Amino acid sequence: MKIFAYGIREDELPALAEWKNENPTVAVDYSTGPVTAETAKLAAGADSIVALQESPFTKEAFAALSDLGIKNLSVRNVGTENIDFEAAKEFDFNISNVPVYSPSAVAEYAMIQLSRALRRTKPMDAKVAKHDLRWAPTIGREMRMQTFGVIGTGNIGRQAIKILQGFGAKVIAYDKFQNKDIQAEGLYVDSLDELYAQADAITLHVPGVPENVNMINKDSIAKMKDGVVIVNVSRGNLVNTDDLIAALDSGKVSDVALDVYEGEVGIFNKDWTDKDFSDDRLADLITRDNVYLTPHTAFYTTNAINEMIRQSFDAAVAFAKGEEPTIAIKF
Amino acid sequence: MKIFAYGIREDELPALAEWKNENPTVAVDYSTGPVTAETAKLAAGADSIVALQESPFTKEAFAALSDLGIKNLSVRNVGTENIDFEAAKEFDFNISNVPVYSPSAVAEYAMIQLSRALRRTKPMDAKVAKHDLRWAPTIGREMRMQTFGVIGTGNIGRQAIKILQGFGAKVIAYDKFQNKDIQAEGLYVDSLDELYAQADAITLHVPGVPENVNMINKDSIAKMKDGVVIVNVSRGNLVNTDDLIAALDSGKVSDVALDVYEGEVGIFNKDWTDKDFSDDRLADLITRDNVYLTPHTAFYTTNAINEMIRQSFDAAVAFAKGEEPTIAIKF
Ligand SMILES: NC(=O)c1ccc[n+]([C@@H]2O[C@H](COP(=O)([O-])OP(=O)(O)OC[C@H]3O[C@@H](n4cnc5c(N)ncnc54)[C@H](O)[C@@H]3O)[C@@H](O)[C@H]2O)c1
Ligand SMILES: NC(=O)c1ccc[n+]([C@@H]2O[C@H](COP(=O)([O-])OP(=O)(O)OC[C@H]3O[C@@H](n4cnc5c(N)ncnc54)[C@H](O)[C@@H]3O)[C@@H](O)[C@H]2O)c1
Repeated sequence: MKIFAYGIREDELPALAEWKNENPTVAVDYSTGPVTAETAKLAAGADSIVALQESPFTKEAFAALSDLGIKNLSVRNVGTENIDFEAAKEFDFNISNVPVYSPSAVAEYAMIQLSRALRRTKPMDAKVAKHDLRWAPTIGREMRMQTFGVIGTGNIGRQAIKILQGFGAKVIAYDKFQNKDIQAEGLYVDSLDELYAQADAITLHVPGVPENVNMINKDSIAKMKDGVVIVNVSRGNLVNTDDLIAALDSGKVSDVALDVYEGEVGIFNKDWTDKDFSDDRLADLITRDNVYLTPHTAFYTTNAINEMIRQSFDAAVAFAKGEEPTIAIKF
Repeated sequence: MKIFAYGIREDELPALAEWKNENPTVAVDYSTGPVTAETAKLAAGADSIVALQESPFTKEAFAALSDLGIKNLSVRNVGTENIDFEAAKEFDFNISNVPVYSPSAVAEYAMIQLSRALRRTKPMDAKVAKHDLRWAPTIGREMRMQTFGVIGTGNIGRQAIKILQGFGAKVIAYDKFQNKDIQAEGLYVDSLDELYAQADAITLHVPGVPENVNMINKDSIAKMKDGVVIVNVSRGNLVNTDDLIAALDSGKVSDVALDVYEGEVGIFNKDWTDKDFSDDRLADLITRDNVYLTPHTAFYTTNAINEMIRQSFDAAVAFAKGEEPTIAIKF
């Protein structure tokens, strides 16, 4: 059996080597670029292809692969917006994605950034870097003493709750569709307003669907406690950034951790050293000592990369054997 | 009743205001300097004094306080090395300290710095600051996937274990005097060597007594896993710094978090901006992107400060009423 992989990044090589080691009967070859009508021929002779790319999977690419007798595509990430499913259907393709790779990676990161914000590690690190080794005034708050409001108790929110409980903190939660275990623990409040009123820190774990867009705005912030901490590692569009900045300026919000940002597409995961990314608001946020901003890296762990490789390659093998992997997409 | 407090710092004022609010019948006055033979007279008319200072509590100071009829001293910290207990006895003083203010503050901080090291937040923050918004190569490791070795399962070590368990991580522990609960959980290994061999990250929570001095040295490090992470928020003398640096240089130790340092006395909690603290080794550690160094701030939380104020002032009231607070020192 032969698999050809597109868009392989350097940070995937250890995981790929491990998978090849565990699957010695599968021949694997790869390139670092995307699948296109032109690059399809690289996969000649393969039973399945595995790919990761931001650029479109076009009708022309599907046609070229099909001409080579290739009918199986496993993408290594969640998103499938760049796939032309109509063309995929026309050429009778099997497609899988990796819908869940590591909820822990994201939940852990959210809680690490939250705890850092409470302990004010950014200003403390900056002081140490310039050899100001005084404690004051960089005093921290203890996790154990806080009431945390978790919005969204799906895969990631529930992991975040476990971590907060390990710290001995009080957790309250809100979800439109309540989870049985969290219900049994008695953590749910009846409304977002109640959560806003009680929480010392709020962490968002909901999808960026239309009804959730800008759920954090000047009205919801006004309902929160003074000095609240806000964490968003979920979707940039959940937060009205201008309203958030106004609340940081007034002191209503004391600290914020953002791994996502309304205008992140085209800016994050690129190197802008000595270049201008033309977003003064983002540049300003980065310099603030109570803003912990990172470029959508919450998922970025060795474990997550392992899972993306392992699940996509396993699915590619299953397709090649005429089986249907559990992560096959129905379209 | 009247209490006079010495050495009050700005960061203590909120806690002091709260205590006064809860104790409206006690008159409280204070100064920002230490108790000396000269400043004793500031306390004239007080039933007890409360103090926090690095400079000595001298025989002359005790004599001057005694002349004013003052016999009660409550210090707001743990350390009592600067008290002339012989003089205190001669003038018939009652003395208390605050032996435990917030184990959680220290345990939480150790785990926050540890989790940061695993996620490599220092190099990621540095990249973001210069607008390099790429993920790679700053890939992190997940807490949940690690085996953590906790050395010392006293007040702080046990709290650290709870936090690690909240992350879903595997914990192994070692202590010369085993704790029943940790025993019941089956976390103890039989020797430090076993812990060194199994742990992906090691955190120290033992006192800096002579037998523990330099317990982390080239021999113990050689027994650890390649790429181990080491955390020391306990005492600087537990680690042989030169051996640690050699292991960082070779890559044997991948990351380290230090809140304490062998040469910290006289350097930490001072401002050296534009001055030279004459410790090139420390200056070098601070610049490394895999070293998370802070100046003994693990304890420094609003909760800890509240406890130091509350416990010392409550003890001062007890002494003034002729009672013996539980934190009275026998000497
Ligand atoms: N930063 C990163 O690297 C990264 C990586 C993966 C996922 N994410 C994001 O994390 C978020 C959570 O992911 P997940 O896997 O836990 O999703 P999930 O589908 O398992 O859970 C989402 C939960 O939100 C609830 N919900 C939806 N709208 C709500 C609302 N208005 N109020 C209350 N609850 C609401 C749903 O009922 C569900 O329980 C998503 O936004 C996802 O895009 C970020
Ligand atoms: N960085 C800070 O701000 C800060 C603040 C407070 C305390 N600390 C330090 O934290 C450390 C732990 O404090 P604690 O309150 O948990 O102390 P503790 O006395 O409650 O616990 C210490 C434990 O270490 C064990 N131990 C001693 N020597 C050992 C050895 N060689 N091997 C294995 N176990 C050994 C003891 O049996 C005990 O269980 C101390 O060094 C203390 O000075 C640091």
